[in-house]
Amino acid sequence: MAKELADLSRLCVHTITTKPWPIEKAAKEFSAAGIAGITVWRDALSGRDIAATGRMLRDLNLEVVSLCRGGFFPSLDKKSRQSAIDDNLKAIDEAAALGAPMVVLVCGAVPGQSLIKSREQIQEGIVACIGHAAAAGVKLTIEPLHPMYADDRSAVNTLKQANDMAEAINSPSVGIALDVYHLWWDPDLASEIKRSGRNGNISAFHICDWKTPTTDLLNDRGLMGEGCINIKEIRGWVEEDGFTGFNEVEIFSNSYWQQDQHLFLEKIKEGYLQNS
Amino acid sequence: MAKELADLSRLCVHTITTKPWPIEKAAKEFSAAGIAGITVWRDALSGRDIAATGRMLRDLNLEVVSLCRGGFFPSLDKKSRQSAIDDNLKAIDEAAALGAPMVVLVCGAVPGQSLIKSREQIQEGIVACIGHAAAAGVKLTIEPLHPMYADDRSAVNTLKQANDMAEAINSPSVGIALDVYHLWWDPDLASEIKRSGRNGNISAFHICDWKTPTTDLLNDRGLMGEGCINIKEIRGWVEEDGFTGFNEVEIFSNSYWQQDQHLFLEKIKEGYLQNS
Repeated sequence: MAKELADLSRLCVHTITTKPWPIEKAAKEFSAAGIAGITVWRDALSGRDIAATGRMLRDLNLEVVSLCRGGFFPSLDKKSRQSAIDDNLKAIDEAAALGAPMVVLVCGAVPGQSLIKSREQIQEGIVACIGHAAAAGVKLTIEPLHPMYADDRSAVNTLKQANDMAEAINSPSVGIALDVYHLWWDPDLASEIKRSGRNGNISAFHICDWKTPTTDLLNDRGLMGEGCINIKEIRGWVEEDGFTGFNEVEIFSNSYWQQDQHLFLEKIKEGYLQNS
Repeated sequence: MAKELADLSRLCVHTITTKPWPIEKAAKEFSAAGIAGITVWRDALSGRDIAATGRMLRDLNLEVVSLCRGGFFPSLDKKSRQSAIDDNLKAIDEAAALGAPMVVLVCGAVPGQSLIKSREQIQEGIVACIGHAAAAGVKLTIEPLHPMYADDRSAVNTLKQANDMAEAINSPSVGIALDVYHLWWDPDLASEIKRSGRNGNISAFHICDWKTPTTDLLNDRGLMGEGCINIKEIRGWVEEDGFTGFNEVEIFSNSYWQQDQHLFLEKIKEGYLQNS
């Protein structure tokens, strides 16, 4: 089991977690709350000067942890697969401009196309982006998604699959983002985390909780402590294997998005210190 | 890939699939539609003479395939775990009275209790019921459930885990129910089906489809052909490994339950012959 979290120095919050706030407001509030890191979703950059936004974040003492998200590589036709690669190259440029060291990949899947085929296309897509990522000093992180997203969001559904892919690609520009929401149920989680750690592939760690009942497949994630995920135990495994990066709070929640975001941010800090 | 299904001789429909119909109506309609088998949910037996209901089904030329469902073994306290065992003994008696050769187990899980602990309690619970099941000539079938139900419905979430448990128990009174909805995403599915077949553990095969988008975690299953599941391929694997039993249509769907059940039954036949 991990040591208790004594302060907020490793807490990062995703802009989508407080979706009602534009990034300028979120950044000010995160900074005032003593939060150390921010992960930026691309929609939050819409219409902004990206480099200037990066400076604004750093001026507020926020470390830019990741840019979310690239990926969605598989497609039935070649032209769409090339468009996906082009969009990922653009995401790498955006991350570089923002000063984010990585782009998180939601890898993609096509309903009806075999998951094996989709995984091949994902790997091809990532490989096609590596040169550009390396030149930009940006890492591409494969995020395995919960099997309930295997239809149209990701054909990479276990940490084992992400490890297989990262090791097959075998590039310093490729890592893995672990999210407890997607992985907590996996009987092989502890051993696969060990494997990721051994191979230097743990690049990011995302937290939230799984509520009972969960009323929406996408936007009903819980605050740490509200659900059944053994977050502390999983954080312990990740840290045992050498990870010292941020604990990133990524909560999609129609319910929280409707509430006062200041109160929500206070609850995030509390849930982080007590239940993560 | 499996051979096409030429007729309805291996089609079974679960009473819950046409939930608005009481079992007497469902049985008449299934029989008139040429459907060969029926799986009975326990709620459908409420207030009925169970043995007489079994005779009614057989008089309509319906084979009683399974009773759904027992299980829910794990609990934080011993008294509740004993109640669960008692209820499973009762389910075995009901299956015997009905003339059903098996009870399908939704194994259970307790939010916040480790999945490992829950699996231990599941195995203990099943073992406690084996003597009674053997005496009654009823098989207990472990149904691995999709990981999105790992919080409070089942700590058995992959066919590998079900195989591990069935082999550890190693009794002719214990088998496995495979449901494509729960298992389709699993990268190890083909090899684990081979393993189940080799050990004589494939006792039941459930079909439906995974819709994109899926709007409800429980009650938005699709008709075969409406979603992304490779049903025919999976049926092929199951049959390669010696399974000759029924293909059971188990669809929970708020949407279909609101529609005309006669039309729905026609669609089931069509989806069965064309897309299963």
